[in-house]
Amino acid sequence: MESITIKDVARLCGVGVSTVSRAMNNHPDINQETKEKIMQVIRDYNYVPNNSARNLKRTDARTIAVLIKGITNPFFSRMIKVFEEEIQKKKYSFVLQHVDNKQDEVDVAIELEKEKRLNGIVFLGGFFSHSEEKLKQIPVPFVLSTIGLVGTADKDEYASVSVDDVKESYKMTDYLIKSGHKRIAIICADNDDESIGKLRLEGYKMALHDNGIELDESIVCPMKEELDGYSMENGYAVTKELLESGKEFTVIYAISDSVAIGACRAIVDAGKKVPQDYSVAGFDGLDLGTYYNPSLTTIRQPVKEMAEATIKILFDLIKKKPAENHRIFEGELIQGESVRKLN
Amino acid sequence: MESITIKDVARLCGVGVSTVSRAMNNHPDINQETKEKIMQVIRDYNYVPNNSARNLKRTDARTIAVLIKGITNPFFSRMIKVFEEEIQKKKYSFVLQHVDNKQDEVDVAIELEKEKRLNGIVFLGGFFSHSEEKLKQIPVPFVLSTIGLVGTADKDEYASVSVDDVKESYKMTDYLIKSGHKRIAIICADNDDESIGKLRLEGYKMALHDNGIELDESIVCPMKEELDGYSMENGYAVTKELLESGKEFTVIYAISDSVAIGACRAIVDAGKKVPQDYSVAGFDGLDLGTYYNPSLTTIRQPVKEMAEATIKILFDLIKKKPAENHRIFEGELIQGESVRKLN
Repeated sequence: MESITIKDVARLCGVGVSTVSRAMNNHPDINQETKEKIMQVIRDYNYVPNNSARNLKRTDARTIAVLIKGITNPFFSRMIKVFEEEIQKKKYSFVLQHVDNKQDEVDVAIELEKEKRLNGIVFLGGFFSHSEEKLKQIPVPFVLSTIGLVGTADKDEYASVSVDDVKESYKMTDYLIKSGHKRIAIICADNDDESIGKLRLEGYKMALHDNGIELDESIVCPMKEELDGYSMENGYAVTKELLESGKEFTVIYAISDSVAIGACRAIVDAGKKVPQDYSVAGFDGLDLGTYYNPSLTTIRQPVKEMAEATIKILFDLIKKKPAENHRIFEGELIQGESVRKLN
Repeated sequence: MESITIKDVARLCGVGVSTVSRAMNNHPDINQETKEKIMQVIRDYNYVPNNSARNLKRTDARTIAVLIKGITNPFFSRMIKVFEEEIQKKKYSFVLQHVDNKQDEVDVAIELEKEKRLNGIVFLGGFFSHSEEKLKQIPVPFVLSTIGLVGTADKDEYASVSVDDVKESYKMTDYLIKSGHKRIAIICADNDDESIGKLRLEGYKMALHDNGIELDESIVCPMKEELDGYSMENGYAVTKELLESGKEFTVIYAISDSVAIGACRAIVDAGKKVPQDYSVAGFDGLDLGTYYNPSLTTIRQPVKEMAEATIKILFDLIKKKPAENHRIFEGELIQGESVRKLN
């Protein structure tokens, strides 16, 4: 079927083309009733304004957008690379949109979809506390990838890919305890954090409890709010303070590898050695940890598999295939050189 | 002045609205002469198709795009953060667009500008070998930031921000020589590289020459083409091979910090120590190098200042203020723990 033109809309409404144009442009100078009539015809006939060759192309845009919170996080850089490869394999194009902390990612997604005629969206990083109503406003299939989801939205309303942060953090803490550590300091997210940081802290607490070790709040060390979250700089500053406090501990468990590396350096700068004087453990499994000296003991998230699963679910949704909408991946405990066995 | 409508264009050309629409949509079913006439009127009257409320907003889009090659490079992540802050200070919004190695960044820029009504563009990373004609097609002000520019385009045709890669690399090599090193292996870009890699290799060769040290091609080690460029993995693989070759050297100069860290780890894994057995030097001045153990001797590029200058020049161009269009920044030699003095 040939699509209808603005002239057709005008004829169907019994008005001039410029009136149709005014209606579409929200021009104030138009009778409200006329406007509604025009908009109804536009909807009924599914009129797509074709104002340039570019728009013709857009109708078949074959575009996936990735909205990312935390562009400087090397963990996400690796995922983006896999997204790009997988999306290109499907002969779709790929738009990367940064969302800053103050922006509402769902609003950004809705706006972007209008501009780009997206086929699907990946939300990467950060955390989500949107209501079901809000999620329903997203007009195309989407997947939440490595996002801490907080709130009560029905699981049918979204798809997700992640590790079980509580369980993986439990696994690391339990490993440290089984290696003979009882005084385990943790560098965790700040108190406002409602995201993966909260979940990883929960896993730590559960493992202590299950092993009969009392929680000592004085060695639960939140990252500094005035510094970048999850950064080496933050790990360094927190560890320096902890060392200077004289509090007793044998290992620092940092909830990301970057923070763990900052912790290692602070220990070295205090004239101590990792792991001879203090052990350090991380979380994420970045390349960086493998090449660090000493190499990091950490939980490796299967980045490639998680990124591939994200794209697979997204395309299943786009193609309306039955999809496994929530995939939780198993992390792997990597025994590096940074943790000493005390037993 | 009220902007003209599609109806006005039709009247001016003595055709119907649908013919104008066909002309704009490159519809085959239109007389070529009529089409040219219509397009001429569109250009003369600067007709902007307003097909929806969204487009009205776009007219005052106040948007800057950053086109980036090499999203996984931590050096760029830091620049992006500063761009974002600076652009927000100006109350503009910020779009990040990834360009892969196979894409032509100028084509991507032109397409994006059409969609977003951009006010300006930053090209970040990679290298540029576009002709003057091509650069002239970019319809808004733009700045090349930390880009190796190859070719003959007139300097009036573009603005740029960078360090002098030849000079900075000369500075590092000269420092190593002055520290008593004569057998300086370099991990450089592969032979096809026409970018900063080539310039840094040039600086190395010049410094050797000026110090009366003969170039030994057997310790000039290109990164492996089958691995990611400028990655830790690449630095590791090249260094491992170099160590196993039995070739004589006292220091490895890697042309990026990531590569240098891979080199350090390969040395450690071979049962040797940095810098006691082999020294290692890098280039870039990433946080990573500061927190590494041993901390890296490197050339620090003033990331923040360079990113700020990029945005300043861009806005000077947008506001048609006289701008200093080519800014070359001075790198700083950071004496870390990874280079031993032999004298």
